[in-house]
Amino acid sequence: MSKVLVFGHKSPDTDTITSAIVYAYLKQQLGVDAEAVRLGEVNNETQFALDKFGFEAPRLIGNVAEEAADVILVDHNERQQSADGIELVKVTEVIDHHRIANFETSDPLYYRAEPVGCTATILNKIFKENNVEIPANIAGLMLSAIVSDTLLFKSPTCTEQDVKAGKELAEIAGVNADEYGLAMLKAGADLSDKSLEDLLSLDAKEFTFGEAKAVIAQVNAVDVNDVLGRKDELLNLINEYVADNGLNLYFFVVTDILNNDSTAIVVGSVAEEAARSFGKELADHVVELPGVVSRKKQIIPVLTEGLQ
Amino acid sequence: MSKVLVFGHKSPDTDTITSAIVYAYLKQQLGVDAEAVRLGEVNNETQFALDKFGFEAPRLIGNVAEEAADVILVDHNERQQSADGIELVKVTEVIDHHRIANFETSDPLYYRAEPVGCTATILNKIFKENNVEIPANIAGLMLSAIVSDTLLFKSPTCTEQDVKAGKELAEIAGVNADEYGLAMLKAGADLSDKSLEDLLSLDAKEFTFGEAKAVIAQVNAVDVNDVLGRKDELLNLINEYVADNGLNLYFFVVTDILNNDSTAIVVGSVAEEAARSFGKELADHVVELPGVVSRKKQIIPVLTEGLQ
Repeated sequence: MSKVLVFGHKSPDTDTITSAIVYAYLKQQLGVDAEAVRLGEVNNETQFALDKFGFEAPRLIGNVAEEAADVILVDHNERQQSADGIELVKVTEVIDHHRIANFETSDPLYYRAEPVGCTATILNKIFKENNVEIPANIAGLMLSAIVSDTLLFKSPTCTEQDVKAGKELAEIAGVNADEYGLAMLKAGADLSDKSLEDLLSLDAKEFTFGEAKAVIAQVNAVDVNDVLGRKDELLNLINEYVADNGLNLYFFVVTDILNNDSTAIVVGSVAEEAARSFGKELADHVVELPGVVSRKKQIIPVLTEGLQ
Repeated sequence: MSKVLVFGHKSPDTDTITSAIVYAYLKQQLGVDAEAVRLGEVNNETQFALDKFGFEAPRLIGNVAEEAADVILVDHNERQQSADGIELVKVTEVIDHHRIANFETSDPLYYRAEPVGCTATILNKIFKENNVEIPANIAGLMLSAIVSDTLLFKSPTCTEQDVKAGKELAEIAGVNADEYGLAMLKAGADLSDKSLEDLLSLDAKEFTFGEAKAVIAQVNAVDVNDVLGRKDELLNLINEYVADNGLNLYFFVVTDILNNDSTAIVVGSVAEEAARSFGKELADHVVELPGVVSRKKQIIPVLTEGLQ
């Protein structure tokens, strides 16, 4: 059996990178020749977690069809968020916690999605189902993913299962979840070494809403004004990107990780409509989204409904 | 919380009917108000299993949107195989063992697919994961589903997991798997009370292969000549159905359950191409498929490849 590659989505976040490492580890324990790889740059938050628990970042790949015949997707399923060449390889497994869309196979596969806050919470179950022990450093990565995806258990995506898994994993990893978690989130919200281009691409995902082609990007910040203070430059870049890529919507969300609110810069032919989906009017391309922190739970469903 | 309906595909088979009953039972044990329902007539094989283990057939429903807001799919996911009105309700869970196609949600859900021979094999795991005991009569239904989908463990779709689950469930049910299984398959292969229309619709599923709209129907028989002896009448009916429904392909498979071979009657604008996908030429609308018993594993992938 040739090697199977395990990877998460483009613009990788902490759950995507760590879940690839963690699930590749589990598959190896089960006798499968699996390798974790990644589709993009590792962000500051993820690097903090990798450093803390002694891991290297997975290998960066380009077109997946040049690398392997069989792949396992973690933390995503939608084709446009996956590797270039994904349509040329066989997806043998998916472990995910997102909606299912733009995903199709010709053969049966192992597909495990659960409506929880984080892929790592599902992986925690799969370890148990297979009676494989979780080493301390692997548990640390899994905890990091849960902290990241649930904003330290405060996001509306966070379920009781995530909290329970987080506690178990913190104990195995030997860290205090709250202390370590806040330090990791702050490392991720430190945008001082980022260019404006970086901010836009750090955690950007493509979606289609009805006929509209959209990108929703999100950054975490300790002070949103660090980002919004450079709005005019950001608008220039976004307008250029929208034009170059034939987008109908660019929805750039800046999330205040201390107060759990967001502000979005919205551009594109359906920008006004997008803001109105939230019952708001755009003011100079900006809309305030108090209490909104989750793209998956608080932004995508609203835009899916509003732009249909 | 309002009632959630649990159902399998149109033209229900034994796995679809029993898995709806079994999973609704499990959800009830977990405190969910779940009801098993069905989308079509119960076949002779399934009725044999229901009678043996003391169950009534689930309630027949029409448009699902008139019945419930939330639904759980078992043994299928493709929209065209599901209930009328499926696009108007929320799919909260899927338990399945088929490829994923024509399936999309706007929200995260519980989706559990495994590449095993039968939905009941996956349900057997889910009972264990939830620490819910399987009663003898429920185990009997689950065994019936595995026997049906794997043709008594002889289909190429049958995995070690199906064999293991079948053994466990036969013991709980207190029946001899081989004796009971053969009796059930023979009850299903008794076509004496079936009209030709019945034969065509008994286990018919819609698919799309590239641009081609197709129906693949399958019946089990002890003697395939019981069916093929009436080929001309069948051809008339199939031609009419193809014309009325704008199909490009009708692939009617008659499977010999004692010798594990099939013969297909093939009609439609891509009929020749379909036969050639198997390296065969159509002879008066008929193609022999020695060793072929599984639509999922031995027919769909071949047509997917051949008609792309």
